[in-house]
Amino acid sequence: MVTPIKTLAFDADDTLWHNERSFRMSHYRFAELLSDHSDVSDLMGALDAAERRNLGRYGFGVKAFVLSMIETAIEVTEERVPASVIRQLIEAGNEMLEHPIELLPGVREALETLSETHRLFVITKGDLLDQERKLAQSGLGDLFEQVEVVSDKSTETYATILKRHGLAAQESVMIGNSLRSDVIPMLEIGGWGVYVPHEHTWSYEHADEPSEHPRYRQIDTLDQLVPLLGLL
Amino acid sequence: MVTPIKTLAFDADDTLWHNERSFRMSHYRFAELLSDHSDVSDLMGALDAAERRNLGRYGFGVKAFVLSMIETAIEVTEERVPASVIRQLIEAGNEMLEHPIELLPGVREALETLSETHRLFVITKGDLLDQERKLAQSGLGDLFEQVEVVSDKSTETYATILKRHGLAAQESVMIGNSLRSDVIPMLEIGGWGVYVPHEHTWSYEHADEPSEHPRYRQIDTLDQLVPLLGLL
Repeated sequence: MVTPIKTLAFDADDTLWHNERSFRMSHYRFAELLSDHSDVSDLMGALDAAERRNLGRYGFGVKAFVLSMIETAIEVTEERVPASVIRQLIEAGNEMLEHPIELLPGVREALETLSETHRLFVITKGDLLDQERKLAQSGLGDLFEQVEVVSDKSTETYATILKRHGLAAQESVMIGNSLRSDVIPMLEIGGWGVYVPHEHTWSYEHADEPSEHPRYRQIDTLDQLVPLLGLL
Repeated sequence: MVTPIKTLAFDADDTLWHNERSFRMSHYRFAELLSDHSDVSDLMGALDAAERRNLGRYGFGVKAFVLSMIETAIEVTEERVPASVIRQLIEAGNEMLEHPIELLPGVREALETLSETHRLFVITKGDLLDQERKLAQSGLGDLFEQVEVVSDKSTETYATILKRHGLAAQESVMIGNSLRSDVIPMLEIGGWGVYVPHEHTWSYEHADEPSEHPRYRQIDTLDQLVPLLGLL
């Protein structure tokens, strides 16, 4: 072991708990509500395009997603969508904001074990209030030294957070289900990146796997993190 | 002077720059678009009620406001609002998110002067991305040691931030245009509160002025903060 790992930073959505599942359910409901106006594949394509187009304006999270659904519903129907459908899209968003948190397998045990030996952080995108709500409901809040809700996850984001807390990149690991947001920028600033794939991950978050990178690792579930850290 | 003031924390919207003005403009546009369905006062009442009702779900900020406008438009028209009106409400929100920042009088000079003698922070509610956008556009970013975007401003919020940065409450001042959010919770945890009234402040932010409190002050514009600090 060259440099001991001292800090573990975790993504939240689809790394600690299920999240994209509730986005998928809203996608289905969206497609169903608008099925008279367009076929499912065109609807999904238009919605995905709106979500990406609006990222710079709305950022990540449920409110941004609902606004993109409404915008797309108006667009694909050429302004003929009835208000009752818009109301149901808002309700779908409200249900997402109240969706009970379901932890991913092995998360609690892994975090409890690791909290005894490492400094634990959460670094997550999304709506500030919603991320706080989910963390509170997860019952994991006390295990983390700090929760950072950020508007984007770039090399600059990670460098700023490490600096603020006086952490060295080579002693820090970012763990998450997005190669693009969690793993690659952390590798680029000299840290470690552990990829935990989740069955549902928005295509926006995809990137080529940096398989050959010396500080890159992949695990299937978070309980594999404990033995992995012993090998780094 | 009993304890020297070392830290100054500023609210952002309507303390450093105009903001509520753009909400008011969207209120007018909302009332105009729906004027066939209800009278202005009922419309404003219904919108205000929706905004308050949705705070716990959406938090503060433009996206929350747009969703409340759409919900109210559907409600007051009993689902008869045309999609073209919804589209215009979304556009009003998008314009708010692109609204150029206009600093309030004396802000830049006051901050430049005070940054030489004090640690400066921003503590603001709202959408994370939008607050970052406004701060970047304000050109004031470099004057602040840290910008904290929070989901609410309670005594707990302030206590957590002071603790995180190792700041003593009695050496810290919160400056803002909301008695409820900026001034009173800071007084309650042992800090100083400086109220800078703004002509447009959402009624939600009102509270009784704590005129008799020994650590409460009021100023008209931020340039009065420099001489005030010499007197504390």
